[in-house]
Amino acid sequence: MSLRATLAKLVDHPRTATIITAVIIFNAIILGLETSQSAMANYSGLIKTLDTLCLTIFVVELLAKLVAHGPRFFRSGWNIFDFVIIAISLIPAGQGFSAMRALRILRVLRVISVAPSLRRVVEGLITAMPGMGSVFMLMGLIFYIGAVIATKLFADAFPQWFGSLGASAYTLFQIMTLESWSMGIVRPVMEIYPYAWAFFLPFILVTTFAVVNLLVGLVVNSMQDAHHTEDIANTDAYRDDVKARLDAIDKKLDALGGERKG
Amino acid sequence: MSLRATLAKLVDHPRTATIITAVIIFNAIILGLETSQSAMANYSGLIKTLDTLCLTIFVVELLAKLVAHGPRFFRSGWNIFDFVIIAISLIPAGQGFSAMRALRILRVLRVISVAPSLRRVVEGLITAMPGMGSVFMLMGLIFYIGAVIATKLFADAFPQWFGSLGASAYTLFQIMTLESWSMGIVRPVMEIYPYAWAFFLPFILVTTFAVVNLLVGLVVNSMQDAHHTEDIANTDAYRDDVKARLDAIDKKLDALGGERKG
Amino acid sequence: MSLRATLAKLVDHPRTATIITAVIIFNAIILGLETSQSAMANYSGLIKTLDTLCLTIFVVELLAKLVAHGPRFFRSGWNIFDFVIIAISLIPAGQGFSAMRALRILRVLRVISVAPSLRRVVEGLITAMPGMGSVFMLMGLIFYIGAVIATKLFADAFPQWFGSLGASAYTLFQIMTLESWSMGIVRPVMEIYPYAWAFFLPFILVTTFAVVNLLVGLVVNSMQDAHHTEDIANTDAYRDDVKARLDAIDKKLDALGGERKG
Amino acid sequence: MSLRATLAKLVDHPRTATIITAVIIFNAIILGLETSQSAMANYSGLIKTLDTLCLTIFVVELLAKLVAHGPRFFRSGWNIFDFVIIAISLIPAGQGFSAMRALRILRVLRVISVAPSLRRVVEGLITAMPGMGSVFMLMGLIFYIGAVIATKLFADAFPQWFGSLGASAYTLFQIMTLESWSMGIVRPVMEIYPYAWAFFLPFILVTTFAVVNLLVGLVVNSMQDAHHTEDIANTDAYRDDVKARLDAIDKKLDALGGERKG
Repeated sequence: MSLRATLAKLVDHPRTATIITAVIIFNAIILGLETSQSAMANYSGLIKTLDTLCLTIFVVELLAKLVAHGPRFFRSGWNIFDFVIIAISLIPAGQGFSAMRALRILRVLRVISVAPSLRRVVEGLITAMPGMGSVFMLMGLIFYIGAVIATKLFADAFPQWFGSLGASAYTLFQIMTLESWSMGIVRPVMEIYPYAWAFFLPFILVTTFAVVNLLVGLVVNSMQDAHHTEDIANTDAYRDDVKARLDAIDKKLDALGGERKG
Repeated sequence: MSLRATLAKLVDHPRTATIITAVIIFNAIILGLETSQSAMANYSGLIKTLDTLCLTIFVVELLAKLVAHGPRFFRSGWNIFDFVIIAISLIPAGQGFSAMRALRILRVLRVISVAPSLRRVVEGLITAMPGMGSVFMLMGLIFYIGAVIATKLFADAFPQWFGSLGASAYTLFQIMTLESWSMGIVRPVMEIYPYAWAFFLPFILVTTFAVVNLLVGLVVNSMQDAHHTEDIANTDAYRDDVKARLDAIDKKLDALGGERKG
Repeated sequence: MSLRATLAKLVDHPRTATIITAVIIFNAIILGLETSQSAMANYSGLIKTLDTLCLTIFVVELLAKLVAHGPRFFRSGWNIFDFVIIAISLIPAGQGFSAMRALRILRVLRVISVAPSLRRVVEGLITAMPGMGSVFMLMGLIFYIGAVIATKLFADAFPQWFGSLGASAYTLFQIMTLESWSMGIVRPVMEIYPYAWAFFLPFILVTTFAVVNLLVGLVVNSMQDAHHTEDIANTDAYRDDVKARLDAIDKKLDALGGERKG
Repeated sequence: MSLRATLAKLVDHPRTATIITAVIIFNAIILGLETSQSAMANYSGLIKTLDTLCLTIFVVELLAKLVAHGPRFFRSGWNIFDFVIIAISLIPAGQGFSAMRALRILRVLRVISVAPSLRRVVEGLITAMPGMGSVFMLMGLIFYIGAVIATKLFADAFPQWFGSLGASAYTLFQIMTLESWSMGIVRPVMEIYPYAWAFFLPFILVTTFAVVNLLVGLVVNSMQDAHHTEDIANTDAYRDDVKARLDAIDKKLDALGGERKG
């Protein structure tokens, strides 16, 4: 057996998945402890060592998989997912880029690619996406138009909320989630522009209606998926069966009639 | 070929739709840049020229369509939609009516009438409307009654929230969205009218229940639409088929029986 | 024709419904004008006269219906609804009971009992209620238990929120609607009772889960109602038809076999 | 009849359930009165005596059930539920553990195990749980990762919100419920970390999407359950019937053909 085949057998072994899951969970605890000041004060060195150890295990596993599967490795979306997450952890985070260090916890997401049940949930969420593409595009359009109008009308009086396209888009997102939309934003705006409600109320109605529609679309899709897989298969089998039997009866009748005439 | 026929061919050509989409997106970017102070400081003239150019292209396209299709042009709701949007952009916005200038961005909405996928989503949303007409009327009724009661009871003590029918309707809308309803509105009101909750809690329950019902109606409608189109057609075809076969078998049996007796 | 029969014919005539609807809408506008200070300053007398006129018409119509239908009048829930609403308007509202005057606007609700489409929506909402009775009882139980616990634990430190069972129930309702639950209520409480989250988070999870379940129940019920009426009837008819045809074929076969042997 | 059999008959008698329900409701009122200062000032002794009486009845009933059913008692989840609730009430609450006293109201929850309709609702809610296990695990994962990132990034500047893993998890839960997420938390954070939205907006989108998905899953499951029980059973019976009849017809035809040839 070649080295590659041995590696492939080792890497795809169920026990490897179990070990990796254990390492991920252990690493999650280690990274959680890093946020505790008392733990860091006393065991800073140990925690960092264990974290590096975990990362090393992940890198070794990834390299083993890369060697074992070759270029086929990158055909699976989950492999690319693992690759990117490990790569983020390897970026040196020394120079002021402390956000990078915080992202190391994303490694814990690897548990999704390892646990089949979580994998299925995420795959379900992702496959639901494309059906909603048009609604998302429409939402993007409404947000862009809303942000341009809001910036043009209210930028001078409320620069902190509507000072730029980005600020307006953020504020409109907040308004769409209905958080403090009235007491926090629209009532103060209406004190200067009394007709501001004519912009904000339709915006709220349209965006929440679109969100509701997304949700409804999701329910209907899931429903049909659930309906189709099992029920429809049974029905089709039954229908084919009935047709075949009717055909058989029909042929026998023809034979009976033909014989008589023969 | 007459000028009208040539124009119609040109105007309905797929490539024209592509070009118009490109112009709309370009125009959207231009109008977005208008909100940036640094861009306007340096390229104000260029931006205005490009915007006018885009508008000119839209007007020319609209006129071409008008000439090509004649009065039939106004039979399509989407054509009227385009016409109104362009018309808004042509209203002179000089005299203090700066809101009109902001509405020019609505032109970007034309992308909906051009892109079939977006068009279908909007048509779906609109066709869902009539089924909800009664619930909307009921909501309007509840809001009107609620606004009259709230104005009568609380106008003197809280003129900024319930000073007029309009102010009360706005405040009740805010309460329906549950934004700051208690800490912001009802608790202060209850300090003066301790029994105010007897008005606001039923209002919240009734309106949110009506909204939920709207949502449920939407789900059920969409579901049935989705169910009917494909599934029902298959079932009907199958059932007709089975009946026809049974009829054929029945007739052959009659023939067999008849022969015998004959 | 007796007086009663004449009255019944008159009262149930479609034109009467139209006139009453018009009077209701006119009355709604009158009652709306009463909230406008400028209208009341100038036309106070006229508005009150017109309101009294509308009320008189309603009372006459109600009496006519009472005479025409006799005791059967009270068998219809909608008639009782009309009766109560008119009765509320006739209660003298002189002595400090200004809330009673505000309730006169409820008369506008009569439009529901007159317009069949609105009537159907309300009847739909009401028939959906009993199926949710158990969930409502469960919610009541959770609120009662929550209110008792919250009052016992937090009454001393936060009398304005949890001072009595009623105050606690109101605050818990606010928390269930998620309005300012954290910044407004739970964070201040946690400053004194650091483990208060152990009470509030489960409360939020349980109550919102129950509300979601109510909603889900509504969707499922509506769905099945919609599904049953038409689809199931068709299917049943088809199935009976197939069975009858198969029976007929079977009998003819028996006859053929029997003849032969005979 | 042995003592155990007599006890079992007594304990499972419908009238016992009615009496226990009455005692529960009476106890609920007593415990509610305990929160009223005026009631406690005047009738403190009576209230405590009645409460002890109720508790005694519950303990006696529980012991009777234990004796009557023996070890089988603990096979029913509802019996364990009753046992735990009574046990909580018996813990001495003297030494500073006043929270324990507040938990005595949980006794009222026993009404669920006694009333079949409430029991069914709760059982329905619980059976819906396992199907959502994966989504709950995913939510837990997202919260853990989010809490670690938030603590690492924002602990120094906002110790009251993100000072520890627990504080961050609580704040993220608040953000997920959309309560004051922007005006209360994210806007202040963005004043120091202008790119904080790049963490919070995705968090909001992902968690609300997961919650919506939970809801959708619930609807779809309930729907299928409702669909399966009745409809599917009918359809299966019908299909078996049709197949049997077709078989019979086919056999008779074979017999006819066979006779002829014989």
